[in-house]
Amino acid sequence: MSGDFAEAGRGVIDLLGLLAYARLVAFFRLAGDAELAPTLASKGALADLAAAEHANYRRLHDRLAELDVQPESAMEPFSVPLDAWHARTEPQSWLESLVKAYVGDGIAGDFYGKIADLCDEQTQELVRDTLVESGRAEFVASQVRSAIAEDPALAGRLSLWARRLVGEALSQAQSVASRRPELAALLGSGVRSVASEADTHAADGTEDADVSEAQAADLATVSRIFADLTESHTARLEAMGLST
Amino acid sequence: MSGDFAEAGRGVIDLLGLLAYARLVAFFRLAGDAELAPTLASKGALADLAAAEHANYRRLHDRLAELDVQPESAMEPFSVPLDAWHARTEPQSWLESLVKAYVGDGIAGDFYGKIADLCDEQTQELVRDTLVESGRAEFVASQVRSAIAEDPALAGRLSLWARRLVGEALSQAQSVASRRPELAALLGSGVRSVASEADTHAADGTEDADVSEAQAADLATVSRIFADLTESHTARLEAMGLST
Repeated sequence: MSGDFAEAGRGVIDLLGLLAYARLVAFFRLAGDAELAPTLASKGALADLAAAEHANYRRLHDRLAELDVQPESAMEPFSVPLDAWHARTEPQSWLESLVKAYVGDGIAGDFYGKIADLCDEQTQELVRDTLVESGRAEFVASQVRSAIAEDPALAGRLSLWARRLVGEALSQAQSVASRRPELAALLGSGVRSVASEADTHAADGTEDADVSEAQAADLATVSRIFADLTESHTARLEAMGLST
Repeated sequence: MSGDFAEAGRGVIDLLGLLAYARLVAFFRLAGDAELAPTLASKGALADLAAAEHANYRRLHDRLAELDVQPESAMEPFSVPLDAWHARTEPQSWLESLVKAYVGDGIAGDFYGKIADLCDEQTQELVRDTLVESGRAEFVASQVRSAIAEDPALAGRLSLWARRLVGEALSQAQSVASRRPELAALLGSGVRSVASEADTHAADGTEDADVSEAQAADLATVSRIFADLTESHTARLEAMGLST
């Protein structure tokens, strides 16, 4: 039991580090994508979204420091998979960047929320607070809807783009889970009632056969969690006039 | 007298629009330059500076709306000169971006402050509030100083860079003054005790000869104001270990 607790503790630090890095990168990406914004008003709106991400980053960063963890070391392990996610989903247009900000950050947020549910109350509250999509839904949905009204062919292209975003998110989430056994164990504990043998060995990270068995379990766990997120993902697509 | 007041009114809107656009662009540039940051901690610090610029932009934007001015129309006339300033001073390294954030925004801020001194009290207060270099000085100065300590040759190169920043700022400020006669008149009123003939004609913007005479006056006015800003500019350079 105390072993489980220690593992959850490392899992919480991992979750906060992952989230802090995710928010910092989302801040930079939103600010960068604003170059694509067609008007000064939409540039400003994207700057608002970016600033909201910065505030989230700052809170998570400060919480890590409060827990006597060097925030940058907690964030560092997640730079490779998150940078890869952004590199593979570079928006080529203003509308793609909007859909990414809403769909990509939306499903990632739901995913983080699921993990947070398994943490202590203070972590839950902090994570929930920093996942608030402050005004994003209305802004993005109305922009995308009116673009589709003008050019209906966009609906199909943007729906495809949304599917690609989810596919890449799933793939990076699996990569994170396989790199961070404590986080995977935390994840797994929400899906299974008892930790599997594979997870326990993965935490040691010694035997190759066990590690790949653990990775298969992580893949299954992550996929199962993503499947659970379908409902709100579909709602976001519908708000924009896109199909699943 | 009432004519002067109306002119000052348009000048104030111009100042707020200029500042709002300057802050929005500074936000985007700081966020973009963070790609150059060597560590996760310095990326985070630059994100903090960028977020502070966003908060300033938001306040100026909301003040324009409060004055029943469409904020984007007030900002729009300044996009060309400010975008030109950034295009001509694209930092090629992390240190150049730091010096730009400190020296460039510093002298621009002093300049805006000088204009604000000539406005109503509420505008003065708002402009002063949004010019606070929250923590920038310490952060930038310490980074630049320690880089120079490691590689003394940097001092000369960065001093040159700082001179170029000021030269480009002066040139863009003159361009702004020549495009916005009301703002130039406001500027001029701080330097001269009575408005010159040239300024009055420039506000009409009808006769070519008068316009170029007014531009010459603007050039002189702007240069004189820049000369007045030397003291704090020199202090910023010294804080970084650079020479004028």
